[in-house]
Amino acid sequence: MDRLKEFISNHVLGNPTRLAIMLYLLPRTRVLFKELLEVLEITPGNLDSHLKALEKAGYVKIRKVFSDRPRTAVEITSKGAQETGKYLKLLREILDEV
Amino acid sequence: MDRLKEFISNHVLGNPTRLAIMLYLLPRTRVLFKELLEVLEITPGNLDSHLKALEKAGYVKIRKVFSDRPRTAVEITSKGAQETGKYLKLLREILDEV
Repeated sequence: MDRLKEFISNHVLGNPTRLAIMLYLLPRTRVLFKELLEVLEITPGNLDSHLKALEKAGYVKIRKVFSDRPRTAVEITSKGAQETGKYLKLLREILDEV
Repeated sequence: MDRLKEFISNHVLGNPTRLAIMLYLLPRTRVLFKELLEVLEITPGNLDSHLKALEKAGYVKIRKVFSDRPRTAVEITSKGAQETGKYLKLLREILDEV
């Protein structure tokens, strides 16, 4: 049952929107803000606040990219990839017990 | 990617504490409030508020049990078992894609 305690104590990835962002980023490394908006169908304000929480935790970096026009890109950090991997391992172990 | 949208739109089970309660209840059908407190290591007020949200969604029933002294028991409903099963299936599908 210690896995359940560990599961509920992760306040960064315990939020489904933040976990979904990390799951989408994990194989892609870097995505545009606009793409995340379309994939997750959430509001820009909502996405922005979750990205800020992920950045504060050190899981992503938010960058301004300039090509024809300025865009916002989100990059996963090695810490973010590692912590997401650990969380997925924990989730899989919990699901295997059910 | 529709699975990610479905995942983030479940506001009942999207909360890790509520999911943990349902995961613990699923094979046991009925547990005491006191036991859930010990298993999850959360405060009584916190557990109470999550159980009320689960009861409002129709996933559990909260009952007063009288033996030597009054206790509170939590029972999973068939709707709760069904919805938790569906959510776990979705989670497994998402994890299989990673």
